[in-house]
Amino acid sequence: MANQDPTRIDELTIADYLQPAGYRSALVGKTHSRKSLAQIRALGIDPESDFARCVASGGFEPYELHEGLYPGARAPGDNGYNAYLNSQGYAGSNPWHEYANCGADKNGNIRSGWQLRNSIYPARVAEEHSETTYLTNRAIEFLDQQDGDSPWCLHLSYIKPHWPLIAPAPYHDLYDVSDIQPVQRSEQELDNPHPVYAAFMEQEYSESFSREDVRKRVIPVYMGLIRQIDDQLGRLFEYMKQTEMLEQTMIVFTSDHGDYLGDHWLGEKDLFHEASVKIPLIIADPDTIADDTRGSVCNEMVEAVDLLPTFVEYGGGVINRERIEGQSLLPLLRSKIAPADWRQFAFSEIDYSERGARSSLKLEPYDCRALMIRDRHWKYIHHNLFRPQLFDMQKDPHELIDLGDNPAYAKVRADMRQLMLTARRRLKPRIGTPYENLANMGPQQDEAQGIIIGRW
Amino acid sequence: MANQDPTRIDELTIADYLQPAGYRSALVGKTHSRKSLAQIRALGIDPESDFARCVASGGFEPYELHEGLYPGARAPGDNGYNAYLNSQGYAGSNPWHEYANCGADKNGNIRSGWQLRNSIYPARVAEEHSETTYLTNRAIEFLDQQDGDSPWCLHLSYIKPHWPLIAPAPYHDLYDVSDIQPVQRSEQELDNPHPVYAAFMEQEYSESFSREDVRKRVIPVYMGLIRQIDDQLGRLFEYMKQTEMLEQTMIVFTSDHGDYLGDHWLGEKDLFHEASVKIPLIIADPDTIADDTRGSVCNEMVEAVDLLPTFVEYGGGVINRERIEGQSLLPLLRSKIAPADWRQFAFSEIDYSERGARSSLKLEPYDCRALMIRDRHWKYIHHNLFRPQLFDMQKDPHELIDLGDNPAYAKVRADMRQLMLTARRRLKPRIGTPYENLANMGPQQDEAQGIIIGRW
Repeated sequence: MANQDPTRIDELTIADYLQPAGYRSALVGKTHSRKSLAQIRALGIDPESDFARCVASGGFEPYELHEGLYPGARAPGDNGYNAYLNSQGYAGSNPWHEYANCGADKNGNIRSGWQLRNSIYPARVAEEHSETTYLTNRAIEFLDQQDGDSPWCLHLSYIKPHWPLIAPAPYHDLYDVSDIQPVQRSEQELDNPHPVYAAFMEQEYSESFSREDVRKRVIPVYMGLIRQIDDQLGRLFEYMKQTEMLEQTMIVFTSDHGDYLGDHWLGEKDLFHEASVKIPLIIADPDTIADDTRGSVCNEMVEAVDLLPTFVEYGGGVINRERIEGQSLLPLLRSKIAPADWRQFAFSEIDYSERGARSSLKLEPYDCRALMIRDRHWKYIHHNLFRPQLFDMQKDPHELIDLGDNPAYAKVRADMRQLMLTARRRLKPRIGTPYENLANMGPQQDEAQGIIIGRW
Repeated sequence: MANQDPTRIDELTIADYLQPAGYRSALVGKTHSRKSLAQIRALGIDPESDFARCVASGGFEPYELHEGLYPGARAPGDNGYNAYLNSQGYAGSNPWHEYANCGADKNGNIRSGWQLRNSIYPARVAEEHSETTYLTNRAIEFLDQQDGDSPWCLHLSYIKPHWPLIAPAPYHDLYDVSDIQPVQRSEQELDNPHPVYAAFMEQEYSESFSREDVRKRVIPVYMGLIRQIDDQLGRLFEYMKQTEMLEQTMIVFTSDHGDYLGDHWLGEKDLFHEASVKIPLIIADPDTIADDTRGSVCNEMVEAVDLLPTFVEYGGGVINRERIEGQSLLPLLRSKIAPADWRQFAFSEIDYSERGARSSLKLEPYDCRALMIRDRHWKYIHHNLFRPQLFDMQKDPHELIDLGDNPAYAKVRADMRQLMLTARRRLKPRIGTPYENLANMGPQQDEAQGIIIGRW
């Protein structure tokens, strides 16, 4: 899936699962997830229904839809922030771009945040009017409307740090080059790299972030944008503390992807190195049952798909086994000992058909797919039409040596392919058949209906 | 998918694709395919819409829905045949079972067709009132209603040959043991078989068909049921010839699966031996462009999923590349030289969670999956939780020697796993994004919208 690719009409989101448990689920921020309005019309679904109303907001009530990515508004309702900026005195039809995502140099020349060289300038918006602060305001407004009795789920989805990489003062200047973490890359990676990896290295964003001058200028600003999130979440949590919401709210902090920022000679987020796929995940479970693990770090293999069943179990909803592919994290949150059958691998998949690498590789869209599986020892990557990649995560934790075509590892690769095929077992193609029906199916059911097969 | 597993609400069938091209698509016979009415209601889809009306008939107009499998009626409208039998003097609430699928012995005792030993008795229904003849009558009635101008697609889906294996006279007695083809099996197959294969061999239907007395009694009747199809299709084609429909109608004869009938010590249809997966496919393309291949046999790798785009292309509909996974067969029908990029493998998948083998293996439903890929040399089968199977289709065309755990074939298995993973490329997960959009996506589109990523 890419941004704005419509999900299937019968796909359910966190909001859909929590609704029967009485939850009001709202979005504040970006989603890039929607259903197809054309398809909704074609199926004769009432366009005034709750379902159709959430068509552009991933199933959540669009309390404040702010994609924060498209220079022009793209989705119905995605214009609150521009109107807000106008009301605060930032004029024009697109103050998101002109003020929040542009800076000004000493001479007053406007510098677009879309160009990395301009990251050093403070955004032309006051911190109190910037995207991160605005979304926090809107989140607090939403919380303020809750009566304390009815359950709710707020999907607070900040856009920053993100292109355009520019920060409001003082965040544009909080860090300097001495704060930057060491880059993870080696010259050896440039020597006969995997063709897909090579194509990503050739992209403009990768070439830019491979330059030391770019990293030194942009990464401190990127860190400032993270620090702003930190400060704004502090403000949100303080509000929740004062209103006694903190002790009855599960808080999950995570991200949809990492960012290479020059690691492995790459920019952006597309491939499977840890910089891209190992995302932050911090969960505060307010229940005293979770006190045993409070403040601790869990080293089990978890995935983003685990969040949905976590929320559903926490909210008292029904974990629909014929659909849900993740595993609730509550057992890990509430005991230091993981369930004996906890998964031993993590899985990821990409479709890079809309990325520049497709043009370099001259691929049809449907060939732009790759699958990754990682266990505690190996990370194996399958590419359509290209050789696989393999990394020894124990001996080479920074993934600098690709063993994907090393004859000595043929058996490891064969085993990882087997694991990858077997990992498909958790895919749920039969979503229309309740799990209990599936579990009870069998010859005994047939016979009860009078169907007797093969009896002499 | 199993019988009656609802397909996803936005899944399109042949009928859905042909509708915009002006086709009336109707079902006469079985489908075992439906949508979930509960889900249709949950989405607020008008239950009176054409879409909802075809909920139990695979998207086709249910001209005559006859599942012919369930002793009681299971789907709305699936009762035409019982009413017909009543009108012809066959009394009772379930004449399908009492007459069409039971026989009578010399002493007039009623013998159920559900028991194989009773296959020798003629069904208690006259041939002219039997299922195959009735469905042919209904097909002719449908054709008779066509005006000759509007295009139509008739899905004539005979249930027989099928359990209960019993035939009306004279078809119960047309063949004898000398007509039976040699059984394909070897004693070696019983020696340490693959666990999933072993579980299927233990099923009652497999044990029955492994017996020579059963095969000798049942197979001639099975052949009689096929002969009845042949005769009834002859009647249908004669009608079409006299009404000048034959020269303007594409006719496709195929089946949804084969039948082991004792091959490999198995009954039924579940696994991947040729007896099960290599189905008949005969296509009569009336267009003179197809004269070059008329009467010839094509040896290319084709699959059942190819029929949908074949019909759509023939009918002048739109082949929706973001959804359709098969390839139209028209190029093979209209030239003896296959397109250079025609596929070099065939793929198949099973979910045996509702079969008796699951109980024997003590598996969770979602572990009951297996994938098969076959090229001109090898057939490779992936099983969740079990070792793979491998057959050398050149040296061992009858698939009697499983090389799945033979160390000498480790490289072949690794290569076939790679092919299997790559074969996933044709799966279309992004059905909401038109192919043209997908093909045009890329950095150039982003830039046209003002999104500039990673420029210094």
